[in-house]
Amino acid sequence: MDKINLVELGPRDGLQNEKLPLPVETKVALINRLVDAGFKTIEAGAFVSPKKVPQMANSGEVLAKINRPKGVSFPVLAPNIQGYEAAKESGADTIAVFASASETFSQRNINCSIEESMSRFKAVIDAAKKDGIRSRGYISNVLGCPYEGKVSTSTVIELTNKLLEMGCYEISLCDTIGVGTPLKARKLIRDVKSEIPVEKIAGHFHDTYGQALANSFIWLEEGVRTFDSSVSGLGGCPFAEGASGNLATEDLVYGLEGSGLDTSVNLEQLIEISRWISGELNKQPASHVTAALQSR
Amino acid sequence: MDKINLVELGPRDGLQNEKLPLPVETKVALINRLVDAGFKTIEAGAFVSPKKVPQMANSGEVLAKINRPKGVSFPVLAPNIQGYEAAKESGADTIAVFASASETFSQRNINCSIEESMSRFKAVIDAAKKDGIRSRGYISNVLGCPYEGKVSTSTVIELTNKLLEMGCYEISLCDTIGVGTPLKARKLIRDVKSEIPVEKIAGHFHDTYGQALANSFIWLEEGVRTFDSSVSGLGGCPFAEGASGNLATEDLVYGLEGSGLDTSVNLEQLIEISRWISGELNKQPASHVTAALQSR
Repeated sequence: MDKINLVELGPRDGLQNEKLPLPVETKVALINRLVDAGFKTIEAGAFVSPKKVPQMANSGEVLAKINRPKGVSFPVLAPNIQGYEAAKESGADTIAVFASASETFSQRNINCSIEESMSRFKAVIDAAKKDGIRSRGYISNVLGCPYEGKVSTSTVIELTNKLLEMGCYEISLCDTIGVGTPLKARKLIRDVKSEIPVEKIAGHFHDTYGQALANSFIWLEEGVRTFDSSVSGLGGCPFAEGASGNLATEDLVYGLEGSGLDTSVNLEQLIEISRWISGELNKQPASHVTAALQSR
Repeated sequence: MDKINLVELGPRDGLQNEKLPLPVETKVALINRLVDAGFKTIEAGAFVSPKKVPQMANSGEVLAKINRPKGVSFPVLAPNIQGYEAAKESGADTIAVFASASETFSQRNINCSIEESMSRFKAVIDAAKKDGIRSRGYISNVLGCPYEGKVSTSTVIELTNKLLEMGCYEISLCDTIGVGTPLKARKLIRDVKSEIPVEKIAGHFHDTYGQALANSFIWLEEGVRTFDSSVSGLGGCPFAEGASGNLATEDLVYGLEGSGLDTSVNLEQLIEISRWISGELNKQPASHVTAALQSR
């Protein structure tokens, strides 16, 4: 049975985009419960400006307090060398850097050009290598940008190659605004695969227009075996109030396990976590699976 | 560019499962607006027991009042000869019959065995043929049954063949409870294709567990070119309060048109219709696309 690697983003990409900041204890409980449900990679926090991203201000404390069993990694965002040093001091085992395939988005999101961001990432990844810390890369807007519209596939491939050369073990290609459609997504991964081993690629689809699961399965068919998602669809969409954000992990697990693939995740436990954390955030779970089973 | 045939079910399968019955005028306006948006096949009503399905009680009046331009067909359900006669008197151009691939579901849904239902349908389809009225077939529960669980693929194939032999121009295979997952859906269509021309098959997926669009695209890749869906995701799920029902047409059109396929439907107009009709029903549209664009 094919094994699928799930990267659970709820505690970081998810909570970072929720209005209600959660206390450390709730975040720790969330991560511990996700570990118990079987996830092997759980994004645990971000070492970024606490002024800009107050939801992630206590990431060091979270890292210090969670259970960290062998075989489970807890990537944290570290976009620059200061963030990296803080992540290292907090005992991070894996850091993540995030580039954008769109120049305008890079300027507006991290206030520097793509090129400048890449040289910052090189410093971070070099330092991590020396410290025996692994690096994961994200490239955002691979299927479209909220400011520029179309994004060049050659830029996506170039950035992916550069981040791999710098030492990232895997690059997550992100449809940040969810505008990708299945056949566009297929065209992209086929182009990427022609230059980069598919084992190095993770799929990261947002469900803004309901396409995320369909796109994930198209990539699965093209050989991608790693997917990012967020329990309960945590996070929403920062570009459109009320719109869906990250693909809900429950819906992904339902589709994969129901297709006979092995995610290592216990769906029943995951649904319990989804109900609980959405209650903590005072909202409904953005997952079809959890909504359907909740009503029973 | 590949043409995709969409069968819009909102005015029938959708409204039939909404609690709030709508007046004739609203139904007529809904169908007329769907015609204007470019749909070529719009399910317009059902000639069934008004006691059991009060939402469809005025289907004859609806058929009489809508605009019916050339090239657009308006199937109506006619499960037995009495229903057929009423449909014919109301000027129906196409009727639809619905069998279940599950014996228990057939008993509970239409109070007869699969075999009995098939002989009723034969009478209906024979009469329709004589009157120059086309017949469409549905087979429900093709990927699972709420009562029996697993459903036999050979039953699905057998019923499909029988309905085609009786004279149906197309059979819609329905995942009525939305339990299908992409690789299970692929297995089914491959088995079906091995015995039946794929041009005769339509895909009808419910979004109960968020799998409907992914399943539709898997079938598209296998050669299916006709899909059923419901504007605004009208209808919900009769088996689980609060759960998603029919695939929302907006999300399907977004995926297909965004993939460079031709649905003949104007997405902007469709979103307007979705907003309007969900307002009439006093509910939120169950479409990611409409939710995302509503917030702008």
